[in-house]
Amino acid sequence: MIDELFIKIIILSDLVLQMMKKFNVCVLGATGLVGSEMVKILLDRNFPIESLTLLASKRTAGSIVSAAGRTMEVKDADEATFEDIDIALFAGGELASEIYAERANRAGCVVIDNSSFFRMRPNVPLVVPEVNEGDLERHKGIIANPNCSTIQMAVVLKPIYDAVGIKRVVVSTYQSVSGTGRAAIDELKRQSFDVLSGNEVKSECYPCQIAFNLIPQIGSFDSSGYSSEEMKMIFETKKIFSDDSIKVAATTVRVPVERGHCESLNIETVKKISKIDAERLLASADGISLCGCSNQYPYPTPLTCANKDDVFVGRIREDLSCPNALELWISADNIRKGAALNAVQIAEALIKRDLVRV
Amino acid sequence: MIDELFIKIIILSDLVLQMMKKFNVCVLGATGLVGSEMVKILLDRNFPIESLTLLASKRTAGSIVSAAGRTMEVKDADEATFEDIDIALFAGGELASEIYAERANRAGCVVIDNSSFFRMRPNVPLVVPEVNEGDLERHKGIIANPNCSTIQMAVVLKPIYDAVGIKRVVVSTYQSVSGTGRAAIDELKRQSFDVLSGNEVKSECYPCQIAFNLIPQIGSFDSSGYSSEEMKMIFETKKIFSDDSIKVAATTVRVPVERGHCESLNIETVKKISKIDAERLLASADGISLCGCSNQYPYPTPLTCANKDDVFVGRIREDLSCPNALELWISADNIRKGAALNAVQIAEALIKRDLVRV
Repeated sequence: MIDELFIKIIILSDLVLQMMKKFNVCVLGATGLVGSEMVKILLDRNFPIESLTLLASKRTAGSIVSAAGRTMEVKDADEATFEDIDIALFAGGELASEIYAERANRAGCVVIDNSSFFRMRPNVPLVVPEVNEGDLERHKGIIANPNCSTIQMAVVLKPIYDAVGIKRVVVSTYQSVSGTGRAAIDELKRQSFDVLSGNEVKSECYPCQIAFNLIPQIGSFDSSGYSSEEMKMIFETKKIFSDDSIKVAATTVRVPVERGHCESLNIETVKKISKIDAERLLASADGISLCGCSNQYPYPTPLTCANKDDVFVGRIREDLSCPNALELWISADNIRKGAALNAVQIAEALIKRDLVRV
Repeated sequence: MIDELFIKIIILSDLVLQMMKKFNVCVLGATGLVGSEMVKILLDRNFPIESLTLLASKRTAGSIVSAAGRTMEVKDADEATFEDIDIALFAGGELASEIYAERANRAGCVVIDNSSFFRMRPNVPLVVPEVNEGDLERHKGIIANPNCSTIQMAVVLKPIYDAVGIKRVVVSTYQSVSGTGRAAIDELKRQSFDVLSGNEVKSECYPCQIAFNLIPQIGSFDSSGYSSEEMKMIFETKKIFSDDSIKVAATTVRVPVERGHCESLNIETVKKISKIDAERLLASADGISLCGCSNQYPYPTPLTCANKDDVFVGRIREDLSCPNALELWISADNIRKGAALNAVQIAEALIKRDLVRV
């Protein structure tokens, strides 16, 4: 009796110690849109930080990042050994991931990578915590953060997949310029001002004018005519759900919006689900806010989801053209849930599962 | 021999006379975006005009419309008898159509109506000339011009329908504010300026801010959650093709663009058609311009289709998620092919077929 109590106390103490443990964290690409949002989210969520190291390229090293009342100097990633770091959040783009991830791993640091560089590698889990947190158990030192458009779609597909199965998704995206980075936000603003003022418009970030226009090209095209963004949505979804039978048809489009990606989803399910049941299901699902009839408008917009954590869902309809299909409109902050927040949630899940090791 | 020649000459003379005939034309709603474009197109295309009468509500009667170097005074529609008019193009909205169409018909004037008021009535042909010009033969005095989003979709569906049949279309739209009218263009510009300047933003034309935002609501919602614009795309398509078996799933979205509607189409066909065959088919179809690999970008945008007559098609792909489906991106000037031009083309077809009578 006393022995049992003693064992329980030891287990509990271990848990408490684990929960109180603090970590040496680093953010690579800390001056970019996603990297600086990672810093903000880590501090806002009281992530158990022992030390926080900010890294970037030589070009921006030395600059100061401010978040949650703290100011921190950014250091040159080339000079980082990662030896004192437990968890590294990478938001420096594909090339930086290729260069620094293995160096970090060799130094014993777990990497959560926002780039597409490692995403489709078989030994790298591709994780949206609401969907496949369990995949973290088989990590070998690198965990990939999925593409922004894929993350928000996966969060919404998950409860539907579990309840009635999913055969096929036809998705058209409405993606904001912040997905391209800070320069694209400046370009949208500058071009908008130039159009309103009757000035000549110059395009640098995009193949043509984005202000008051639409560009149905995100990434480069392959020989079949698909863009790299569309192929990411198709293949990353299969990997996240560990189910090659989920079919996705994607058209990805850049729209003149600063922040927040929207998607029009047509989801063909295995079994039929009614509009009311789908609303009930999604309203109670992790990471989802439902915009229903009780809201001012029964739909989210980029403005209403900006700087929020959840994926917002509205306009749920039973598809009149197919016996087992739903139509819905979803919206999420592409910099938060589509990138920085999802990476921090992965880090939190690693800690909870005691998986902060290479 | 001489008799036969004589008959041929008589027939030919009749044809020449028919072609040389001029008509008394009127535009109702001539001060609006669509009405003033109708005036411009009639003059630009050398429509056989004997006289051109411009009508509008009391509020704008007396104002001057300028087009093709001519200035014309707009008269009060309430005072019009339509007795000297052969063809009336209506662009005054549903209420004006309800009030004036029968009055015009009684006076012997054929009405081509841009509003949705008569569209779904069984005895009113709903016509896109590239698709169902033949339906004009059964007109009883009123011909309806379809919804802007439906017209551009129907033009693109037609050659595919004829070649391989169509089972189901999943469409998501990206519709510019000019579809709402001139006040909405002003609102987009004013709001954009206010956002860039850090001023407070006010919304009058739309339920919420449209500048740098998206609004997935066009029209009002029914109890199933569909918007009136979406239901128009579903039911008008069936009527235009005289085929209730064509299934359409539509999501219609307003985007911060001044002019030009775009659509992401997923078309499930009865028989398979390859990307190359679809490109060949669409490149040679009436009213379509293909943006292929030889173009600077393999896709149209709202800016590239503005003030053009054709429906532009690009990004043709074989859908990887369905054995017999195509994905494509289309774009058209919603004020021209989506409204004013289609109405004028209907009038031209009525003349060609000698159907200018009630």
